[in-house]
Amino acid sequence: MSVRAAAPNGNNLVARRLGLDTHDELVVITRRDCPVCRSEGFSAHARVRLKNGRRSIIATLYQVESELLGLQELGLSESAWKRLGIGDGDLVHISHPQPVASLSAVRGRIYGKRLDRAQMHATINDIAAGRYADVHLAMFLSSMAARDPDDDELTDMIAAMVAVGEKLEWPRDIIVDKHCVGGLPGNRTTPLVVPIVAEHGLWMPKTSSRAITSPAGTADTVETMTRVDLDIATLRKVVEQQGGCMAWGGAMRLSPVDDTLIRVERLMDIDAEGQMVASVLSKKVAAGSTHLVLDVPVGETAKVRSQADAERLVARFEQVGERFGMKVRVLVTDGTQPVGRGIGPALEARDVLSVLANADDQPTDLRERAVLLAGALLELAGVAETGEGGMLAEETLASGRARARFEAICRAQGDFRDPPVASETHAMPSAHTGVVTRFDNRRLAQVAKLAGAPGAPAAGVYMHARIGDRVERGQALYTIHAESRGELAYAREYAETNGIVAIGSSS
Amino acid sequence: MSVRAAAPNGNNLVARRLGLDTHDELVVITRRDCPVCRSEGFSAHARVRLKNGRRSIIATLYQVESELLGLQELGLSESAWKRLGIGDGDLVHISHPQPVASLSAVRGRIYGKRLDRAQMHATINDIAAGRYADVHLAMFLSSMAARDPDDDELTDMIAAMVAVGEKLEWPRDIIVDKHCVGGLPGNRTTPLVVPIVAEHGLWMPKTSSRAITSPAGTADTVETMTRVDLDIATLRKVVEQQGGCMAWGGAMRLSPVDDTLIRVERLMDIDAEGQMVASVLSKKVAAGSTHLVLDVPVGETAKVRSQADAERLVARFEQVGERFGMKVRVLVTDGTQPVGRGIGPALEARDVLSVLANADDQPTDLRERAVLLAGALLELAGVAETGEGGMLAEETLASGRARARFEAICRAQGDFRDPPVASETHAMPSAHTGVVTRFDNRRLAQVAKLAGAPGAPAAGVYMHARIGDRVERGQALYTIHAESRGELAYAREYAETNGIVAIGSSS
Repeated sequence: MSVRAAAPNGNNLVARRLGLDTHDELVVITRRDCPVCRSEGFSAHARVRLKNGRRSIIATLYQVESELLGLQELGLSESAWKRLGIGDGDLVHISHPQPVASLSAVRGRIYGKRLDRAQMHATINDIAAGRYADVHLAMFLSSMAARDPDDDELTDMIAAMVAVGEKLEWPRDIIVDKHCVGGLPGNRTTPLVVPIVAEHGLWMPKTSSRAITSPAGTADTVETMTRVDLDIATLRKVVEQQGGCMAWGGAMRLSPVDDTLIRVERLMDIDAEGQMVASVLSKKVAAGSTHLVLDVPVGETAKVRSQADAERLVARFEQVGERFGMKVRVLVTDGTQPVGRGIGPALEARDVLSVLANADDQPTDLRERAVLLAGALLELAGVAETGEGGMLAEETLASGRARARFEAICRAQGDFRDPPVASETHAMPSAHTGVVTRFDNRRLAQVAKLAGAPGAPAAGVYMHARIGDRVERGQALYTIHAESRGELAYAREYAETNGIVAIGSSS
Repeated sequence: MSVRAAAPNGNNLVARRLGLDTHDELVVITRRDCPVCRSEGFSAHARVRLKNGRRSIIATLYQVESELLGLQELGLSESAWKRLGIGDGDLVHISHPQPVASLSAVRGRIYGKRLDRAQMHATINDIAAGRYADVHLAMFLSSMAARDPDDDELTDMIAAMVAVGEKLEWPRDIIVDKHCVGGLPGNRTTPLVVPIVAEHGLWMPKTSSRAITSPAGTADTVETMTRVDLDIATLRKVVEQQGGCMAWGGAMRLSPVDDTLIRVERLMDIDAEGQMVASVLSKKVAAGSTHLVLDVPVGETAKVRSQADAERLVARFEQVGERFGMKVRVLVTDGTQPVGRGIGPALEARDVLSVLANADDQPTDLRERAVLLAGALLELAGVAETGEGGMLAEETLASGRARARFEAICRAQGDFRDPPVASETHAMPSAHTGVVTRFDNRRLAQVAKLAGAPGAPAAGVYMHARIGDRVERGQALYTIHAESRGELAYAREYAETNGIVAIGSSS
């Protein structure tokens, strides 16, 4: 127990950094017999307010009976430590928080009431300030999933999410962007689209999220090849130099609440429609985008399962985008099977690099999809005539210009490196001879996640067969990659007991 | 770091009891550089499976960088320690949990699907086994609040909640019970009804919950006068001897999932209709009750706010109760103002004791309500003719027989003691001269909670005025009681800035 800065008094306790990683949950620990806590009547799992100077947070209190802490000490998780911005030995004031008023509106929303503008802003502000415990975030997300927000609510939510973070301003009228609503493993077109459109003079300050429920987000994939946690000054410099960037949005406080919500959505394993629109558009508005191409893959096991669902989503993106002065063009694409061969950060990066290199064994489906999206963006921004964007995009890849631009962007972001290779692999053989008729994309994603993706960047699944391919009994359908034997075993056990690839009888 | 039982190997780590109170959230802490965790790819806030012998749990993982733990050690919260039933130095196997299958159904329920019988049983089983993190429990509760369960779902839920716990069997055809749906501060009739009906030969094995969102549950109140954490053998003995008991249900594993759900409902501060029916009836079915009288107070600021809401609730209780062979009689009562004078465990206990003693200053409204309920129960069970139950109940109080029985029951439960007295009090004066026209029950409850109730048993609010009373400016309307100065100040600050009692202009 060391007291550097000052002696405790009243409700002040001496802060101690515990080195406890709770992700971004805010946790504080005190002695159960700590006099302040006894006199305040705090009990375990209570929510308490901590204040140091001008910063204050609400954290979940745990109590210890051991000598881990002194009676006048207060141990903080890394997340709480950073939010308070304090040093070891600083005094922290602990008190009962006032009830979080916006939670009443969230409770009301569960019972069917909408949030008005003021309530939505109060809710997002409270979330940004760390006043919601995980169960409150789960309650908010459940309420939004159970009763889809209308366009007014969505607009208010996006505006509030943008308002609590940074906003990029650009000295140009056209800022292009693309987004895929996900759900399709391996659909990693961003690192291809960015260099193509940048090569034609457009500015594309692309920010991506990490995986929500998938084995890899674009940021996870790009991170295997270069730095993605750019600050705003670096991002601006990269875009001004190279016309494009591929950054992780979370490091920049563009719509920071989105990242908090994504963490809890991941735990809940839900990804609701309205939330998806708010997540995507809040990032785009904060990034200053004006022209957006959206890739919506549709398939039985993709995130969007039917044409009707896709059309509803398209309408929502276009209508709500318009409220922020954004031109949105939506491409509904094939979501019946994975795109490319790799599923998982490094394996998807290898696909990207082989397309850029025009390699003989490149995944042509990934190339075609990137050309489609880049072409649409070139047309939407007026660089190509209608119907000619795809051709222009294809030429940019074939000539090697896209590859050179990609590497230049990576170097501008920090470095350009090879993706890591997994230490453990296992090839999954076909149980039958026949023709591949169906992939279960959700289960494939589950195998990649059990193998460690995206936390273990080299982990995932590499596909050897596609729909329509004829395979022999015993022939490898896909290979599981992992960074540890334990994870390889889990993924393999799951893959062996769940149907992943359907093989039709040979004909 | 002490290793008593065995040396670690493979995925086994040496358990260490941290003395960390996280309430009933299951938490495990390892070193970030622990070899097992690195090879398994665990990250902070991951869910992990812990196994020791035949017991296994799923816990939330936090990681430390400090020397708090050894590389081969695994620190456990008290809740996780008890669930695993281990000793210091025991080996615990740590691994990735398989996905919790029932969560898919819960996600589906958010989007509008009902849970079928198998899904409901799987969900309740997984909750009972500790496989749901708090965010998952919040998701389940939100889904039930957002789309009220139908009678089939409720019946399945109750059956599942009963099945995972203990069930009491009695050698009698009639077992009576009562319940109040709450929301009305101070409505503490149970400790009056139990001795009255027991005095007439009925068996009433009453189990109560602690407060959910209120300043005191019946168990909290009774606990200020006797032991309430009875095991089943003790409860049975008390009922066989005395005809009735007043126990805390949570100590007995009667519908233990109810207690888990209540903890999270308390954090969320919600208390949905369907959940309320499931909570009450699961406890009653598990307790073996056959005849139940329900008190449903209705008022603008009570839990049930309109006659229509009350009637819907009555129908649900009667219909679902019938499926379990239970006769339910519902009394809709006045919920416009608190019952009795005390709000908070000890203050409510004082009201109960003064009614039992037929004291001059007893709260007559509490007495009348207890007589109403006990009378209805005596009639429902066939002890009194229709219309004569109330008179019989009143005589039982007036004669002192109820008081003697109450004390005998307390002694059978362990001891009979005086409720504690608060060290800090503050009288809140009326700002005007006039007539009391309205109480805000929710805010009154909030004052009592900010004062420390129910955690601090002596804390709460003691009322000096009732609706219709004429009061002078400066006259005390109520007194706040607290066990600490900090809590007194919080409660007072809230009371001074929020309208609690409406005073009409003097006429």
